[in-house]
Amino acid sequence: MAKNRFHSNDHIYLQVSEGIENMIEQEVLRIGDKLPSVRVLSEEYGISMGTAFQAYYHLEGMGLIESRPKSGYYVRFNHHRFPELPNTPLRDAFSHDVSVKEMISSIYTDIVANDVTNFALAVPDPSLLPAAKINKSVMFALRNTRNNCINYENTQGNLELRKQIAKLAFNWGGKIKADEVIITGGCLEAITMSLKAVTAPGDMVAVESPAYFGIYQAIESLGLKVVEIPCDAVSGINLDHFKKAIRKFNIKAAVFVPNYNNPLGSCMSDENKKQLVEIITKNNIPLVEDDIYGELYFGKARPKPCKYFDTKGMVMYCSSLSKSLSPGYRIGWAIPGRFFDPVNQMKRIQNISSPTLTQAAMAHFLLHGRYEYHLKSLRKALHTQSLRYVQAIIKYFPKDTKVSRPQGGFILWLELNRKVNAFKLRTEAMKNKISIVPGKIFSSSNNYSNCIRLTFGKPWSDEVDYGLMMLGKMIGKMI
Amino acid sequence: MAKNRFHSNDHIYLQVSEGIENMIEQEVLRIGDKLPSVRVLSEEYGISMGTAFQAYYHLEGMGLIESRPKSGYYVRFNHHRFPELPNTPLRDAFSHDVSVKEMISSIYTDIVANDVTNFALAVPDPSLLPAAKINKSVMFALRNTRNNCINYENTQGNLELRKQIAKLAFNWGGKIKADEVIITGGCLEAITMSLKAVTAPGDMVAVESPAYFGIYQAIESLGLKVVEIPCDAVSGINLDHFKKAIRKFNIKAAVFVPNYNNPLGSCMSDENKKQLVEIITKNNIPLVEDDIYGELYFGKARPKPCKYFDTKGMVMYCSSLSKSLSPGYRIGWAIPGRFFDPVNQMKRIQNISSPTLTQAAMAHFLLHGRYEYHLKSLRKALHTQSLRYVQAIIKYFPKDTKVSRPQGGFILWLELNRKVNAFKLRTEAMKNKISIVPGKIFSSSNNYSNCIRLTFGKPWSDEVDYGLMMLGKMIGKMI
Repeated sequence: MAKNRFHSNDHIYLQVSEGIENMIEQEVLRIGDKLPSVRVLSEEYGISMGTAFQAYYHLEGMGLIESRPKSGYYVRFNHHRFPELPNTPLRDAFSHDVSVKEMISSIYTDIVANDVTNFALAVPDPSLLPAAKINKSVMFALRNTRNNCINYENTQGNLELRKQIAKLAFNWGGKIKADEVIITGGCLEAITMSLKAVTAPGDMVAVESPAYFGIYQAIESLGLKVVEIPCDAVSGINLDHFKKAIRKFNIKAAVFVPNYNNPLGSCMSDENKKQLVEIITKNNIPLVEDDIYGELYFGKARPKPCKYFDTKGMVMYCSSLSKSLSPGYRIGWAIPGRFFDPVNQMKRIQNISSPTLTQAAMAHFLLHGRYEYHLKSLRKALHTQSLRYVQAIIKYFPKDTKVSRPQGGFILWLELNRKVNAFKLRTEAMKNKISIVPGKIFSSSNNYSNCIRLTFGKPWSDEVDYGLMMLGKMIGKMI
Repeated sequence: MAKNRFHSNDHIYLQVSEGIENMIEQEVLRIGDKLPSVRVLSEEYGISMGTAFQAYYHLEGMGLIESRPKSGYYVRFNHHRFPELPNTPLRDAFSHDVSVKEMISSIYTDIVANDVTNFALAVPDPSLLPAAKINKSVMFALRNTRNNCINYENTQGNLELRKQIAKLAFNWGGKIKADEVIITGGCLEAITMSLKAVTAPGDMVAVESPAYFGIYQAIESLGLKVVEIPCDAVSGINLDHFKKAIRKFNIKAAVFVPNYNNPLGSCMSDENKKQLVEIITKNNIPLVEDDIYGELYFGKARPKPCKYFDTKGMVMYCSSLSKSLSPGYRIGWAIPGRFFDPVNQMKRIQNISSPTLTQAAMAHFLLHGRYEYHLKSLRKALHTQSLRYVQAIIKYFPKDTKVSRPQGGFILWLELNRKVNAFKLRTEAMKNKISIVPGKIFSSSNNYSNCIRLTFGKPWSDEVDYGLMMLGKMIGKMI
């Protein structure tokens, strides 16, 4: 038996499957190729049959290989078959008032709809979330918090929860203290309060184009104006265009999602993040950094946020547990750097404090290492789902469909044939109880009218398969 | 035995004690008078000895009579001995920018302080709140809500909770439907969102003088200006002055607390409420009505809110469970009348929705009639505490102390000798681990510098007695 040639700090089956994944990636193994039998694999790698089986099982789960009865495993999928990336117009930044309402309102009514195949909402499916363990944390919090959580919590937030959030920053090399953290009612509240703390009505704020519609609405509700900065579908914010925009407009703040941006799925390189922080610091432009997708990476390491490169306290870091653990608990936070005081005050003025019970429960959950444990399986599940969804899009959607390649999160951005009106597509889809989000609401310009955002938070199922097939047909008819 | 002469729909002992209370009030019975023995009382009223004893026990609990060992019951207290009412200046309304910050921030840090006798925070003591029953509702909600409450709730709020809140309006004769209600993170969030929905930065907003500092801060944070309307310590808003202010200033909205106003404890008459609604309707001025103390009445019936008299949807009713049931659950609501749409939208933009679990738990608690049941005992406790606290103030504070006479809620407003600087008094008191709120922060003018707000949410105890004694001494020294 060959010597086991694996380093011990990762599961061996994962290292084996990764090797095979690379071979598929590099087209050493091609679609339809037969893979070695489990026995041969075990001998070749010097691993047990069980581990070999587990490696194949894992690759199968990711949709990369398939088992054919009485025949063995075959390569099923190749990343190179990925469709083209969506285009993002590289025009100069422009400023304007925003106004997007009815469509967004209709999307949020889907939240509680039971009978809709929901590709619109950006949340992981409840089946991927550890409800039973969270319940236990709630019970613990009720029993062990002073006055059974009936009284007001500190306005800045539960101390243990703030400690745990500070600890999360270790994952990206950040040194955050509990007293720098403010607990908010989800990330959106953190963003709104952060923005409000550094702007006055009429000010101009830079956002990515396309950008999450919630950010547009927050900006609009504060009486601010938007400057859209072009983004690349892979690497995010175009820094040259951002610098140009700074020269052209009196930009007072920026709201960016550097990691797995919603809706593009782009992720800025460390080098670009560092440069970005230099630019905003030099120009005295506070950066509200939305990092809610940062923990949901498919690769080996968590991407760093801009906050990592921030030495002057100019980055107002915002995040939450809503995309990764417990949307309904409404636990978010701001780490506003040098703007701590006004944000902390604003939380108190707006709603005194977040609920005591939900904070205490999440503090308990995080304190006991359950979040890290849960994230490991969630990341795997989402990675697998991303591959499955893209395969189905390739299969069912017209050939000219362009699709983003997110390396984290659960959001796909699709550029459809120019003839497709995504608003009409949504209406048509809703008749079939399928919900998507048209691209137009991710910008205040008239861009993206033939784009859609499609979330893959739902695990693969016949319902998802059918939904994507139906969508593909509808799009086909529109061309 | 004389015939029982009581109507059956109230406890007999309460009817007996009320009769005696009236006699004390009208000075038929005077301080120091001996009361009939329990046996004589039972014969006189045709009630059992047990009921007679219960009546005396109840009066003793309210601090109106006292039992002397081996002697019997004696009158201890008379409402006519109440000190003078505080003055409220009747100057014309004036408008100005607001700015009150550090003091308020320091008051909120008391929230989690364990070792302070807190007369500053406006919350009922946790011992008066039904924590165990609320816990049961939490357990029920976890078990019986779809996905264990892990998912987002509808942005407008839990439907059952909205139904229950609509039902609460029956108590004051209101006809509210569940779809008119928006759940918010406490009353302050409801007020802020309501105000924001009907104003633009720079607008002028009418408030009571003195008014709750949270309202001032909400107004300031929205970039609005304040017009202070004089209030009477008993009957609230002075309508003549309000009308004058409307002629003088371009008032765009009003935020009033018509029932048991914080800090004055005043309650507007039905006639005045009706007139107020006519005035605001005629002048097209939306009224944000804060009714958080409305359920905490000491008398026989719940006072009506202005919303009752509102036929045109101009009253934006705001309330919460924070003063009466569960401060830490952060459950409030807005019933914004004709301004429903912008407020509903604002909730979504600000923080998407309130937490699912806390809403479901409160829905269950209310649905099972537990709120009504709890309120009955809370009202009694607070009434008793109000009398006890006032007695102690009479006993310990200088003779020239003027005290409000709230008929609901748990807030006293004290006007001290002109020589007293209430800011200094707070500093002095905090050295002795006693917390009060100086009157100055209830106005943006320089009024009320010799006033304090003192809350009686804490049940009577040696600690409270000692705290009030110490306060009295400190004030005495300052004169």
